[in-house]
Amino acid sequence: MELGFGERDFTACCGSKKFAEEMSRAGPFTSLEQALEASRDIWFNKVDINGWLEAFAAHPQIGETPSVNEKNETSAKWSKGEQSIALATASNCSLQELSEWNSWYKQKFGFVFLTCASGKSSAEILGELKKRFSNRLIVELEIAAQEQMKITELRLVKLFDARDSRTPHAIN
Amino acid sequence: MELGFGERDFTACCGSKKFAEEMSRAGPFTSLEQALEASRDIWFNKVDINGWLEAFAAHPQIGETPSVNEKNETSAKWSKGEQSIALATASNCSLQELSEWNSWYKQKFGFVFLTCASGKSSAEILGELKKRFSNRLIVELEIAAQEQMKITELRLVKLFDARDSRTPHAIN
Repeated sequence: MELGFGERDFTACCGSKKFAEEMSRAGPFTSLEQALEASRDIWFNKVDINGWLEAFAAHPQIGETPSVNEKNETSAKWSKGEQSIALATASNCSLQELSEWNSWYKQKFGFVFLTCASGKSSAEILGELKKRFSNRLIVELEIAAQEQMKITELRLVKLFDARDSRTPHAIN
Repeated sequence: MELGFGERDFTACCGSKKFAEEMSRAGPFTSLEQALEASRDIWFNKVDINGWLEAFAAHPQIGETPSVNEKNETSAKWSKGEQSIALATASNCSLQELSEWNSWYKQKFGFVFLTCASGKSSAEILGELKKRFSNRLIVELEIAAQEQMKITELRLVKLFDARDSRTPHAIN
């Protein structure tokens, strides 16, 4: 079965316009595995530095709930889900500390601190942020690109799950 | 002896505004070595990704003579000097090929191909460009940052040389 996704679906997985365009062009995908493979190739080999920064900028700051006015509702909803453990384990105090470290990180590197937050507590995220803060810019760029890829992969899985649950009786 | 340089002088060495501001703040320098050390620390540890891209964008495309309308005349003059061997060894044909590869490079990575051109022939530069074109984005970002640092160092030497030749009888 081949059910196509639109650019808006792929933008919810990764906020780079170029990524979404190339995924649309590469599809339709006959399987999740095929989409994952294409997404890795596109993200690491076809999206340029401006696309990377565009994708990073599409994330809310870790510890902050995305606003309802986010450009991409699906992305905002998924982001909230990915941060659910962090938010559930955070006190006002640790959220404040997270917010301060986030600001310092952004000031130092020029982009938001990015980590695949799924399953991580706020303390774990804060520890990771503090540790990564001393890295060189080029190292953080590489880590951020890899974390973005993990987030994209998890979201592609959700995209395919949602499609499959909408078409339970489809025949290949 | 301590003779200060202005932000405009440092912008001619490296086109990142943040770099020039931090160098001004770190100075005045009592020696070239002190300035070189500060410049490395600032470029690799204090300038963010936007500053790197700003510095890369301040370079003319390799093989192209900087226009007289360049924002920074000193930078344009030095750039012409650095490319003098490349330009002297280039035929119209190789300049055309260099121009095409430059476009493909910029399209792939999102920033101009950067190499410390001093002493390199056009054939050497073209060979380097073709070889680096297949690199991953993160690898090219790191090489570009290092090449920018080499260019900055050469230009700081010129800056100090020019200062010393203006004050031949100064006493420390």
